Amino acid sequence: MTDQQHSILSTIRTPADVKTLSEEQLVQLSEEIRQTLVGTVSKNGGHLSSNLGTVELTIAIHRVFDMEQDQLVFDVGHQCYTHKLLSGRAASFDTLRRKDGVSGFPSPKESPYDTFIAGHSSTAVSAANGLAKAKSLLGEDGTVLAVVGDGAMTGGLFYEGLSNAGRSSDRLIILMNDNRMSINDNVGFVARHLSRMRSRPRYVRFKRNFGGGVRRVPLIGKGIYRMMVAVKDSLKTHLYRQSSMFEDMGYYYLGPVDGHSIRDLTRALEAAKDIGKPVLLHVDTVKGKGYALAEKNPDIFHGIGAFDPETGETAPAGNTFSKVFGEQALQLMEEDERLCCITAAMTDGTGLTEVAHKYPKRCFDVGIAESHAVTFASGLAQNGMVPVFAVYSTFLQRSFDQLLNDTSIINSHIVLAIDRAGIVPDDGETHQGIFDVPMLNAIPHATVYAPCCFEEFKVHLRQAIYDVDGIAAVRYPKGGELMIPAGYKPDYQPFTWYRSRRSEVLLVTYGRMFGPIMAAANELAKNGCFVSVLKLNRIKPIDPACVRVALTYFRVLFFEEGSRHGGVGELFGNLLAENNFARTYELHAIDRFIPACKVDEGLQMVGLDVSGIVAAVNEISAEDGVNEFDPPVCQPEIEFDQTEEAAQEATPTEEMQESSDEADSAATEEEEMPDE
Amino acid sequence: MTDQQHSILSTIRTPADVKTLSEEQLVQLSEEIRQTLVGTVSKNGGHLSSNLGTVELTIAIHRVFDMEQDQLVFDVGHQCYTHKLLSGRAASFDTLRRKDGVSGFPSPKESPYDTFIAGHSSTAVSAANGLAKAKSLLGEDGTVLAVVGDGAMTGGLFYEGLSNAGRSSDRLIILMNDNRMSINDNVGFVARHLSRMRSRPRYVRFKRNFGGGVRRVPLIGKGIYRMMVAVKDSLKTHLYRQSSMFEDMGYYYLGPVDGHSIRDLTRALEAAKDIGKPVLLHVDTVKGKGYALAEKNPDIFHGIGAFDPETGETAPAGNTFSKVFGEQALQLMEEDERLCCITAAMTDGTGLTEVAHKYPKRCFDVGIAESHAVTFASGLAQNGMVPVFAVYSTFLQRSFDQLLNDTSIINSHIVLAIDRAGIVPDDGETHQGIFDVPMLNAIPHATVYAPCCFEEFKVHLRQAIYDVDGIAAVRYPKGGELMIPAGYKPDYQPFTWYRSRRSEVLLVTYGRMFGPIMAAANELAKNGCFVSVLKLNRIKPIDPACVRVALTYFRVLFFEEGSRHGGVGELFGNLLAENNFARTYELHAIDRFIPACKVDEGLQMVGLDVSGIVAAVNEISAEDGVNEFDPPVCQPEIEFDQTEEAAQEATPTEEMQESSDEADSAATEEEEMPDE
Repeated sequence: MTDQQHSILSTIRTPADVKTLSEEQLVQLSEEIRQTLVGTVSKNGGHLSSNLGTVELTIAIHRVFDMEQDQLVFDVGHQCYTHKLLSGRAASFDTLRRKDGVSGFPSPKESPYDTFIAGHSSTAVSAANGLAKAKSLLGEDGTVLAVVGDGAMTGGLFYEGLSNAGRSSDRLIILMNDNRMSINDNVGFVARHLSRMRSRPRYVRFKRNFGGGVRRVPLIGKGIYRMMVAVKDSLKTHLYRQSSMFEDMGYYYLGPVDGHSIRDLTRALEAAKDIGKPVLLHVDTVKGKGYALAEKNPDIFHGIGAFDPETGETAPAGNTFSKVFGEQALQLMEEDERLCCITAAMTDGTGLTEVAHKYPKRCFDVGIAESHAVTFASGLAQNGMVPVFAVYSTFLQRSFDQLLNDTSIINSHIVLAIDRAGIVPDDGETHQGIFDVPMLNAIPHATVYAPCCFEEFKVHLRQAIYDVDGIAAVRYPKGGELMIPAGYKPDYQPFTWYRSRRSEVLLVTYGRMFGPIMAAANELAKNGCFVSVLKLNRIKPIDPACVRVALTYFRVLFFEEGSRHGGVGELFGNLLAENNFARTYELHAIDRFIPACKVDEGLQMVGLDVSGIVAAVNEISAEDGVNEFDPPVCQPEIEFDQTEEAAQEATPTEEMQESSDEADSAATEEEEMPDE
Repeated sequence: MTDQQHSILSTIRTPADVKTLSEEQLVQLSEEIRQTLVGTVSKNGGHLSSNLGTVELTIAIHRVFDMEQDQLVFDVGHQCYTHKLLSGRAASFDTLRRKDGVSGFPSPKESPYDTFIAGHSSTAVSAANGLAKAKSLLGEDGTVLAVVGDGAMTGGLFYEGLSNAGRSSDRLIILMNDNRMSINDNVGFVARHLSRMRSRPRYVRFKRNFGGGVRRVPLIGKGIYRMMVAVKDSLKTHLYRQSSMFEDMGYYYLGPVDGHSIRDLTRALEAAKDIGKPVLLHVDTVKGKGYALAEKNPDIFHGIGAFDPETGETAPAGNTFSKVFGEQALQLMEEDERLCCITAAMTDGTGLTEVAHKYPKRCFDVGIAESHAVTFASGLAQNGMVPVFAVYSTFLQRSFDQLLNDTSIINSHIVLAIDRAGIVPDDGETHQGIFDVPMLNAIPHATVYAPCCFEEFKVHLRQAIYDVDGIAAVRYPKGGELMIPAGYKPDYQPFTWYRSRRSEVLLVTYGRMFGPIMAAANELAKNGCFVSVLKLNRIKPIDPACVRVALTYFRVLFFEEGSRHGGVGELFGNLLAENNFARTYELHAIDRFIPACKVDEGLQMVGLDVSGIVAAVNEISAEDGVNEFDPPVCQPEIEFDQTEEAAQEATPTEEMQESSDEADSAATEEEEMPDE
């Protein structure tokens, strides 16, 4: 593809530039955009199918509306790439989903043309309702448009937004992007209703005869306009079946319109623009449109890593926690008929494809309905099943009340397999998995495991299912293991203490951070600074013996790949304070939203990479002169490339069990420390 | 009313006893139940209108179904009184909503006949979906019934549940209790759809001719049964308009049936029982039925305190935080056209009745849709309005994700007026306002104020609106002020330090707890134990100077009327640990679910009443020998009945400002302390 082929796209600086193009040029533009989408996503990864499906829709929106006064809100937001290309971000589009690059989701920080944040599903109608209402109240011009895919229509928030926005009389257009995806799964009756509507004759034919006429007389009096709308209404009633449902909700329903005809879309949008009350425009699109591989397999190309644009093949992925979860779930379900799995429209992402195939009766895809998923799970549990809800950390935020009220109070035993915990690559601030821990910390009677490797994960998953009651969660990151010391042997206890006998400094951590922490410990040891490491395997409840271990050190540093506020580190600090800890405690956790980046970049950004950890320890040692107590001279007992033997020696399972068993052994433990 | 009049109700020990009664006796039973409902609620307060509306429905359910295998789930649960009376709790019903009494909501801990927890809206269909699915998977008999009022149909979770449950083939009956309440407000299109359905001829007439016949042949083969169902379907199609919406969703729709005819209800339920797939039975009821005052004013009698059953008059309530909020909102909205208020179906409860009346265009009742409320508010804020969402603490739990993703990331300035914070009287564990603080603590860039009295509340509300950006919350309890020291003068600073110059002990608290803390301080002083008090007025972010104040004490005790986990006390302890605090820290907060009780009973239950505070201080003093440092001999500078002068002297506004301004003044501050 040569530069000349992008001759039109490169001339578009602001959305208004689209208005200057002829219909032929617009068709050419859509072709250029499709090439750019496939080209960039094949390199950077991203959402392809939904973006290919909304090229013409986005062009038509910018043709008809004026983004200096009108506003465009995307639901979920993974269909906003064309909008980004048309609003000043074409030149930098090759930085898509890169650190300091173009975000894969709408981001008001990035551009004034990104009206509202998105990333989680089903929010657009509620946001647009607020935006349009404010315009009405403040007497400002302009229409607010919300683009909603049929997947998002399965979420309860969509229903709340739709119910409320329909009651207003603001200038609001909801573009129902019906790409027939969720309909196959039969989730969501609004989507099913749309499906029925789709079988009607194309609305645009009617529009050609009557709609244009109305729009072309913009200065007619209100009375005449109303009359003409009434005529249209009457004609519509006779010519087409009405959508009683949407009209019950207060919307003027238009559609379906061919979502790949810029001409038809333009006419429909022009008609919608004039109606002056909430309009629901039903747009019929094909997911993956124009790229044969994606049209054929829209699911695979929904969210995808880098791939070969010719063959559609992606690089073979290594083993991932999601994959291990799927395999493990499959095995456990084979063993135990009470087990069942729930996903909120993330069957593939959470690794459940095979489970859904093999145990369709015990694998539930509830749509993008995380709140329902939890209450449903609690119901299953109350009648004797053991439900495992596999969910991304960030989406579990939708279930806080259901975990508390519908589950915790009655102590229903439900298992949460929390995928994408910690820093999530590429998707940015709306998708980071850093708030599930504060959320679960606030919920009474919950148990949370945080494995660092596949082996540990398998056992903790089993423990969550069989060893505890109430809410039991296992949280694990996106992708694979991170820097696990060679020969690492998990002990599956609530915590593991890697004790360097001469050390004054204890590093506490959990989950994936164990790898970087051990790497840092070894790097520090090379420079003569020896630290002990406390790895929390179960982060809730905290084993009281952990605290007793920490009390024996002069410097305790907690490194947490999660939100500082309400996280385990804060809890740990409080436990130290409540136990008369008289030395230094430092918490290194995440105190900001993290934009799109790779995992290592994200860890570095918040000082949780190896060099950040090393620097933190060096700083505290220099500052407070840890060496004044007793300079550690021996070798660390755990090294990055530890032998099995060394690991066994250093893993103080027995010691731990002792200190766990005897609540008052802290003093003894302390005396045993060689450095005191 | 004599005992004889309750002759039937008193014979009902289990739901099965209902089956032995004749139709005449059932009518008599319903009369007795109504008398009991009015009698008890007029004494204890509670939900009246919705319970009066579901007497016959509940009787008919227990007549047709067998609660030893069938299960009954209530949505919200405030219509479960009749069920409680019929399932072993008639004799103790006069303890309704009392400590150790009968809960006003379904409670599985209370009775095996209370299948599932309830309290928050829109959960029943999801729970019933899970319960019924488990029965199917485990091959167990029985039908699961969910009773859902039309108010609950405005919540997104209801939509998620309805969409999903309709896809199943389990024995599940959803009883849509259409009492026409939310329809008036036009919220929720399912409710509006029901309203349209209601105008059809009564279903039961059809049932009389055909339905009974099918049921009376229980042993017919599956094929014949299916054929008969097909015949019914065909007849229904010809005789009645179908509800395309509910049928799209996978339900067999029956109704509407007269919700006050036990005979009609019985027939409809018997028909529904046989259908063997999810049924949606539309029941037409009158809220407040049978009690003229409640029929006339169902809203007033929805949730009500004790009242005179003859006149309906309640005792004149004193001033409340809700009332102060309403007055204040009214005044602020008059001053500022950008201000608007949002409520999630709690216009009266949050004190917004007058606002809604005077500023209907700027006061939004969004239905029971707290998630939508927040995203909608964020939309309003992005376009220049200043939305104030008045919401009960417990219901805000529904908005966690929306606060984080749709609001905090883009720093929308929305104000949360969090009513019913802390212990909430009478409603029990599902309604305690103890989790909003952990939730807000986890959200970056939020500000939270916790006033203890009306005056402070007014100023903090104004500060939340005008002095900060991002999410700004003010949280306040149900009811009025609690034990505020006479002559108390708030200083509206982030914190206030009541310094007893000879004290070694610092009590830290916020919000309503300030009253009991000051009372305890004075009681302790009478016995020669002098303590200082640190009142946090702004609990997020914590002013760093607070921590510096605390570092100057030997004993710091934090008393928090809120969840221990993730609360301010835990955060405070962590801050002490991070600042090398080397003395004693104790956190007294809520570490359990709190059942129905009065506020003082609840505080006592968790050791937060005056004598609990006194005991905690005495214990720590005795244990650690606080007197060994320096026995305090002077009078406390704040007394419970302090004069204005004393208050002024003791309120160390200037000192505080100094310590706030100079970040490194902690050492100086410490030196100034006379006890060190």
